Amino acid sequence: MSVTAPLGFRAAGVAAGIKPGGARDLALVVNDGPSRAAAGVFTANRVKAAPVLWSQQVLAGGRLRAVVLNSGGANACTGPEGFQDTHATAEKVAKALEDSAGEVAVCSTGLIGERLPMDELLSGVETAAGQLSRDGGLAAADAIRTTDTVSKISFKRAAGYMVGGMAKGAGMLAPALATMLCVITTDADLTSDELDAALRKATSRTFDRLDTDGCMSTNDTVLLLASGAAGVKPDLAEFEQKVYEVCADLARQLLVDAEGASKAIAIEVVGAASESDAVTVGRAVARSNLLKCAVHGEDPNWGRVLAAVGTTDAVFEPDRLNVAINGIWICRGGAVGDDRSKVDMRPRDVTITVDLSAGPHTATVHTTDLTADYVHENSAYSS
Amino acid sequence: MSVTAPLGFRAAGVAAGIKPGGARDLALVVNDGPSRAAAGVFTANRVKAAPVLWSQQVLAGGRLRAVVLNSGGANACTGPEGFQDTHATAEKVAKALEDSAGEVAVCSTGLIGERLPMDELLSGVETAAGQLSRDGGLAAADAIRTTDTVSKISFKRAAGYMVGGMAKGAGMLAPALATMLCVITTDADLTSDELDAALRKATSRTFDRLDTDGCMSTNDTVLLLASGAAGVKPDLAEFEQKVYEVCADLARQLLVDAEGASKAIAIEVVGAASESDAVTVGRAVARSNLLKCAVHGEDPNWGRVLAAVGTTDAVFEPDRLNVAINGIWICRGGAVGDDRSKVDMRPRDVTITVDLSAGPHTATVHTTDLTADYVHENSAYSS
Repeated sequence: MSVTAPLGFRAAGVAAGIKPGGARDLALVVNDGPSRAAAGVFTANRVKAAPVLWSQQVLAGGRLRAVVLNSGGANACTGPEGFQDTHATAEKVAKALEDSAGEVAVCSTGLIGERLPMDELLSGVETAAGQLSRDGGLAAADAIRTTDTVSKISFKRAAGYMVGGMAKGAGMLAPALATMLCVITTDADLTSDELDAALRKATSRTFDRLDTDGCMSTNDTVLLLASGAAGVKPDLAEFEQKVYEVCADLARQLLVDAEGASKAIAIEVVGAASESDAVTVGRAVARSNLLKCAVHGEDPNWGRVLAAVGTTDAVFEPDRLNVAINGIWICRGGAVGDDRSKVDMRPRDVTITVDLSAGPHTATVHTTDLTADYVHENSAYSS
Repeated sequence: MSVTAPLGFRAAGVAAGIKPGGARDLALVVNDGPSRAAAGVFTANRVKAAPVLWSQQVLAGGRLRAVVLNSGGANACTGPEGFQDTHATAEKVAKALEDSAGEVAVCSTGLIGERLPMDELLSGVETAAGQLSRDGGLAAADAIRTTDTVSKISFKRAAGYMVGGMAKGAGMLAPALATMLCVITTDADLTSDELDAALRKATSRTFDRLDTDGCMSTNDTVLLLASGAAGVKPDLAEFEQKVYEVCADLARQLLVDAEGASKAIAIEVVGAASESDAVTVGRAVARSNLLKCAVHGEDPNWGRVLAAVGTTDAVFEPDRLNVAINGIWICRGGAVGDDRSKVDMRPRDVTITVDLSAGPHTATVHTTDLTADYVHENSAYSS
């Protein structure tokens, strides 16, 4: 279903020859309207890839006719030539659709610092444009994979309209978006401002709270396109909830497929003086390599949790900290609590609850364990 | 030589039975004067171990008669009982030396969240006090090891006096001190304020710039004790330089012995608008798990360097960034530079130079690669 579940969208995924080996590597998603309202959020990294710089300009207009995405190369740190490559890609899509390049977003993912093979890419755009269909959502989701072992798609029905989406991302998942590309579509009728508000709310509590390896990408892009084809002006609160659900579903799929991970870890911070404190603490714990190793070893090492909490400026008193792992409060009042042998670390899902005893606010940050497979996969990526 | 190289110091290292297996696990360093001036710097972690809380109080007086150190247990997150254990340890030392516990610093290292076996520890103090000698520096350095594969000692001669030191630390090496204990001694005659200034200057440019895994300990302690036994009031600039050299030497030994590391990586930031910017960028790069994996795989993946630089708020323009690895400028102007195949990544020492093109300031942060051995060692630590 993916991005073509809502009415008004066609998509395609083809093998353009950007990746060696003949796998699909180019996706095209087209909005046939009647509306073209759109919104986007992008990486907070100051080193932004050419397609991010391009798409940010395009989104300033609040409208998108199409999104073209490629795997097999990030087109990041490629200088003015790289930006021209992105521009040429958008122009090629515009020509194929007899439309304006100013409403074509471009997304790229893969290795940083290498130019894209433009001959292959541009002829791939032509092929994709010829294959656009209402059934193309799955092929498009497949074409944007890099080290993803599976395609990530989602859709939700609401009152008279739908929200669908696809995403990719398996490593470099970090705050202010994971290294990820995500396209979400709806056939409801909304303004670009309404889409922007819904998208920011949803991503701030989903993708932004996924932190598998603390590394922030140069290419992160999440786009939301509305075709209006269902002819429904939705209740905004319901719409925001549906967009949130699609983002949360895709974020969960990214987490479970993270490079080399054997555990999905939820850092649930409670008792915080503010939501911001809760996120700060969750992130600090999620980034502790030592803790991530301990979870990999199924060792309920709560000392490493406290050591990470202690590096933050959140409101807390060290002797009022409580920590539970999978429901067993093994640290109470900053010291030894219940018997650590009661903690069952064998399930894939591990929940670490940190109670700051400082207020009513909560937040959950998701991460994975640190494994020899992660090291292996990322030692060999570009060589 | 170690801490007993300077006149006026005796030391001992014994097996108290805190660690299983009969290895040395308790060290005692005694300053016989005539001066007892001392200074200390401690972890910036807000979750501080009992011995850190104790020793900070002691150092407020600017004087130390002795330092007692144990491996085999950090005595962190052990509540009021843990603090009483530290206090009792200091009292035991004071009794053995017929002196005041108020001038006895305590340092502990090992697993967080477990009480120390006080019977063994206290009788170990008695044994150590009986074995104090001018030759005891090596045994003391040996007794403070945890996962350290070798003892770390250093000493430097100056005009009429000496500076000696010992350190331990192999994992959890991070800013605002590594997880480390370090005792530095001198037989020069200085006030505690002079010692404090020299120690802060030295540690801020040595131990503080060692960041092997981004994890900050609850127990970091660096102490500097002056006996005045050489009867020399040193030139302060020369003394500061000698303390710096001892710290730099010990920091290098910690880096080379870091858990699971196969590469020693220097992140050399140049062209920064301020020294603080240079440190910020160096730390961000040193903490990129993806880059650390790439170096492990001997892959000159400069894109991961730029992605890390881009997460900081340092002054720079993305299209003016240059990156060299082992002297080859493979990224120029934020894009592809010299041929990456020219980079020789085989040596153990890898230097990554980041030129921000934003000013005259520089700083170097040291880290290690991320390896399957690191994961293995830290998955199994407490289980």
